[in-house]
Amino acid sequence: MTDCLSPVTLVLGGARSGKSAFAEGLVERASANRLYLATGQAWDEEMRDRIASHRHRRGEGWETIESPVELTQALETQARAGRPILVDCLTLWVTNLMLGEHDMDTAFGGLAETIPTLKGPVVFVSNEVGLGIVPDNAMARAFRDHAGRLHQLIASLADEVHFVAAGLPLKMKG
Amino acid sequence: MTDCLSPVTLVLGGARSGKSAFAEGLVERASANRLYLATGQAWDEEMRDRIASHRHRRGEGWETIESPVELTQALETQARAGRPILVDCLTLWVTNLMLGEHDMDTAFGGLAETIPTLKGPVVFVSNEVGLGIVPDNAMARAFRDHAGRLHQLIASLADEVHFVAAGLPLKMKG
Amino acid sequence: MTDCLSPVTLVLGGARSGKSAFAEGLVERASANRLYLATGQAWDEEMRDRIASHRHRRGEGWETIESPVELTQALETQARAGRPILVDCLTLWVTNLMLGEHDMDTAFGGLAETIPTLKGPVVFVSNEVGLGIVPDNAMARAFRDHAGRLHQLIASLADEVHFVAAGLPLKMKG
Repeated sequence: MTDCLSPVTLVLGGARSGKSAFAEGLVERASANRLYLATGQAWDEEMRDRIASHRHRRGEGWETIESPVELTQALETQARAGRPILVDCLTLWVTNLMLGEHDMDTAFGGLAETIPTLKGPVVFVSNEVGLGIVPDNAMARAFRDHAGRLHQLIASLADEVHFVAAGLPLKMKG
Repeated sequence: MTDCLSPVTLVLGGARSGKSAFAEGLVERASANRLYLATGQAWDEEMRDRIASHRHRRGEGWETIESPVELTQALETQARAGRPILVDCLTLWVTNLMLGEHDMDTAFGGLAETIPTLKGPVVFVSNEVGLGIVPDNAMARAFRDHAGRLHQLIASLADEVHFVAAGLPLKMKG
Repeated sequence: MTDCLSPVTLVLGGARSGKSAFAEGLVERASANRLYLATGQAWDEEMRDRIASHRHRRGEGWETIESPVELTQALETQARAGRPILVDCLTLWVTNLMLGEHDMDTAFGGLAETIPTLKGPVVFVSNEVGLGIVPDNAMARAFRDHAGRLHQLIASLADEVHFVAAGLPLKMKG
């Protein structure tokens, strides 16, 4: 007997808010057969440590695929009825798209078109980054704008949206 | 038939959280005759683009008045029974007051005295900016303090307060 | 007749969100005999002003003890059945621990072990700092991580958790 997972879930939260652990719990209670779609790239020590610590916490029972840029194609290829996918996280995907100078509207539009066609449930994790002072840096402002637009888009397609702070979820939709 | 609008509403949210669109929706459902009180000044390209995009989204049915500093007087002059006013946004008003070296206590006190006397409903939009790391810059810290104090003041006078993230409102009061 | 205070409460919020005033209200309604455990140190003018303004607002009826680093010991020594303690705030404690190059796991673990053994109720106030852009500065990133981990830990031990914005509390637990 497993808990039901909505077709599309968005888990938003701040840095070290417990959002990944909360999202993993949703997926683990729903199925023993699950896929972790990682958008993070281990480009420095700090990031390597963080990825290793996430992998350690997840433990057994997860297949892991790295997909720093081609997230939409990975979702299309990997979705199976009854196998949940956890995407962690959208903000790193936005970073990778920006670093690769991809067109954001095309990328976001492609993801939005694909989501309703997926065969299995998907949980997106993302960092809320828009609640501090306006950054001095134009690149950081652009990032914040892209992330905010993507969150609105995914939230509009999601059946459930949770905001996590201090490890505690607050349901905003669903 | 129109939805009712409370006398005073505050809509708080982060950058690109969908707070303006949410606030516009509240006002549009309440009345066909409405005023947009803009505190933004188009001092650079980025700001000009943002103002143009907001104006485009609002579409027809809005009168727009720019009031970067004299917000309280504009509210007094423009308020009419049954015509809602949308003020977008308080944080830009704080920025403009600081740039003009106005006394913040006087400005905030004047607004707070005026609000209960207005003849028509008013919706304030503002950016929550206090949930990141303490800024290095003393001016940014002062801005964050002024904005936080103003939000507390307006929230205490408001009948409804909404916090918007990813386009989704969370009612905090009302 | 006094309101009941849970054994352990966490009040989270942004800068100038009204979190301290909210927490003080909880404690003041619960008991006339109360202790303020301050972690702040007046190392510059800005901080001195802030401490003085907090002290002024609290008014009479509070005993104040400063405990910038030895928070756990102060809690052990000061806890009395029926006398609530307000700790304001955890983020300054994290700052002081980092400045003193203390081991964070040891400090956090010690606090977590002590909390369930305390004889009287305790209310922790802390700043949510993880909802802005990732800071450039490695020290600020480490601070954000420590604060986030500590919030998760205290929230897991707390009976009540409130998130405060614009002076308005949102109950996240309890």
